[in-house]
Amino acid sequence: MNNFTFYSPTFFSFGKDTENETGAYIKRFGGHKVLIHYGGGSVVRSGLLDRVKASLDKEGIAYVLLGGVQPNPRSGLVYEGIELCKKEDIDFILAVGGGSSIDSAKAIAAGVVYDGDFWDFYCGKPIENALPIGTILTISAAGSEGSPDSVITYEEGMYKRGASGDAIRPKFSILNPALTQTLPAYQTACGITDIMAHLYERYLTNTKEVEVTDRLLEALLLTMVHEGPRVIVNPNDYEARANIMWAGMVAHNNACGVGRSQDWNSHNIEHELSALYDCAHGAGLAVTMPAVFTYVMEHNVMRFAQVAVRVWGCQMDFEHPEVTAKAGIEALRNFLISIGMPKNFDELGAKEEDIPKLVDVLCNGNGRTGTISGFVELNEEDCTNIYRLML
Amino acid sequence: MNNFTFYSPTFFSFGKDTENETGAYIKRFGGHKVLIHYGGGSVVRSGLLDRVKASLDKEGIAYVLLGGVQPNPRSGLVYEGIELCKKEDIDFILAVGGGSSIDSAKAIAAGVVYDGDFWDFYCGKPIENALPIGTILTISAAGSEGSPDSVITYEEGMYKRGASGDAIRPKFSILNPALTQTLPAYQTACGITDIMAHLYERYLTNTKEVEVTDRLLEALLLTMVHEGPRVIVNPNDYEARANIMWAGMVAHNNACGVGRSQDWNSHNIEHELSALYDCAHGAGLAVTMPAVFTYVMEHNVMRFAQVAVRVWGCQMDFEHPEVTAKAGIEALRNFLISIGMPKNFDELGAKEEDIPKLVDVLCNGNGRTGTISGFVELNEEDCTNIYRLML
Repeated sequence: MNNFTFYSPTFFSFGKDTENETGAYIKRFGGHKVLIHYGGGSVVRSGLLDRVKASLDKEGIAYVLLGGVQPNPRSGLVYEGIELCKKEDIDFILAVGGGSSIDSAKAIAAGVVYDGDFWDFYCGKPIENALPIGTILTISAAGSEGSPDSVITYEEGMYKRGASGDAIRPKFSILNPALTQTLPAYQTACGITDIMAHLYERYLTNTKEVEVTDRLLEALLLTMVHEGPRVIVNPNDYEARANIMWAGMVAHNNACGVGRSQDWNSHNIEHELSALYDCAHGAGLAVTMPAVFTYVMEHNVMRFAQVAVRVWGCQMDFEHPEVTAKAGIEALRNFLISIGMPKNFDELGAKEEDIPKLVDVLCNGNGRTGTISGFVELNEEDCTNIYRLML
Repeated sequence: MNNFTFYSPTFFSFGKDTENETGAYIKRFGGHKVLIHYGGGSVVRSGLLDRVKASLDKEGIAYVLLGGVQPNPRSGLVYEGIELCKKEDIDFILAVGGGSSIDSAKAIAAGVVYDGDFWDFYCGKPIENALPIGTILTISAAGSEGSPDSVITYEEGMYKRGASGDAIRPKFSILNPALTQTLPAYQTACGITDIMAHLYERYLTNTKEVEVTDRLLEALLLTMVHEGPRVIVNPNDYEARANIMWAGMVAHNNACGVGRSQDWNSHNIEHELSALYDCAHGAGLAVTMPAVFTYVMEHNVMRFAQVAVRVWGCQMDFEHPEVTAKAGIEALRNFLISIGMPKNFDELGAKEEDIPKLVDVLCNGNGRTGTISGFVELNEEDCTNIYRLML
């Protein structure tokens, strides 16, 4: 196991009606004037925004609203949020929504207290400081509610890049599984896929002897395999929603990924798809993961055989471990199709003729020099082959 | 799943040589004058204490030493530590050792800033405030390095009781698996048993539909089953020590126990054994757990069958699930024996004629009124029967 540090100081309030405690938590974590940052109409229509406002009013906390966060959140709204916070003397940012709202809130929080361009943080500059952030989660997916990460798309060039730092970990996150019950099945499945991708990206490691994190990652994958189909069949299944919601947080706060190299090539390869086609990140991952895993399987057949046996219940073929390894990848692909995810470029709305452009931005954009690194280092030819496996 | 809150703000520094960063972490978390609290000679003999002192000297941090913590730490030294901290204007407590040193440090930390008797906290008074605490862990066992818990034995009457509160969660914990390599096999095995007990106590729940935490607990049990025998065979196996060390923390910071009722009857029943005979807590648990589980198995046969199949690899007997359930308890017992743990009263140094006394203190001592509650509520007759199963 590699040396590591781990720090996850977010306070989690989990369960029914917990959003009514929002005002009290903002007070506890020092907020006086809040930017409430959210996406579209569902937060308004469901009455959630009104309940949150009532909770802040009860504690005498002032607030300003900034809605309009899109999936694959954009730099334009981040700049707008930073200006608004400065103008209004905001000292706390509350994200209400999914990973997009939370990631946009994190970018704003870091940008407000920084003299330069917030995009510097997404080009590698460490985040040293940020306004405190709270979140109310409405979809189990990104894990941003418990992570130090944020992904933003820069509109000029449509670069989709990530930033990370303990300063943008939320002070508190409110996780009420009931808030996810109104999600359409497709979005729910996209979230499930994203969570599974966070687990696979950590699972694909080159570090030896990491039994404890292997087992924890497998535990969360098994949970998704068990609970995922239940919420697709019955969106109102609170218990299944609850199990997925906690799994989604633990999958990405890195308690299960410490001390080991990680992959993240599937995320990198997918990010170009959702940046170009504005498809759902989870849907893009559903198409990307089986292609990447098929392409890199030879790098460590036994690792793919292990997840096939332990998670997908495949029989180990001791004479031909690659048969088991492949069976596990097929089981993942079939599972994702079974919950309603796309299986290829066509279903995703991606185009074969764009592959050279996708590969170029992926491998050469934003400071990269011809390759992406992870479980396996991939060059332009590799990435071309991987995109072609998705046709 | 039940509503819950979860808060684990401890900063963990994990890996080789991490104890040399102690001074820097104390500075980061606001300490200026430190009580270094530890047990016996091994911390001195191994040179660890000297390395820690050098790290504090380097940062210009003053310190006072208080050694002498015993296994099953006692109230007497806690009172001494509180007086010393007041006299010396200590503002930070550093525990160097295992659960005993850490639990004693937590009691001192809470007691220093409290006008009354620190024992109030161990009789149910909530802990609101405490001096900040740091830890350097030298045995994987109690999980106190990441937990809000402390267990102390009150010398007058030899009551062994626990207290809990976020205020006594360590600010930082330094986990260097190499520091555990010098432990004798017996102590190592006691630690493994304690970690497994923390997992079983959470596993035995009456809350339905808790797949995510079930799976996480099973993951950690599987890790112990895989790594435990490796360190008994080869105490210098750093990788196995590392896997056990992280598992021990995650097992008890409650990330895997949230939203579900828990048991803790095995701990309660064992505490009377280690309080009366001063045996190792882990050794007591090795004798206690199979007896308790055998006695309460009928309460939920399928739960015991589940752990038997998923952790111990037992075949499910679909016609007679109780056969599988029993096989899982036997597998646990045999595993504990295989790593060198005692299997009965005799090997533990306990005496049959003491059972009435053990039961009386257990069920009626320190505010209890004839029963202990957990997975199953147990009265004096039940507890007598359970102790008799250990003969």
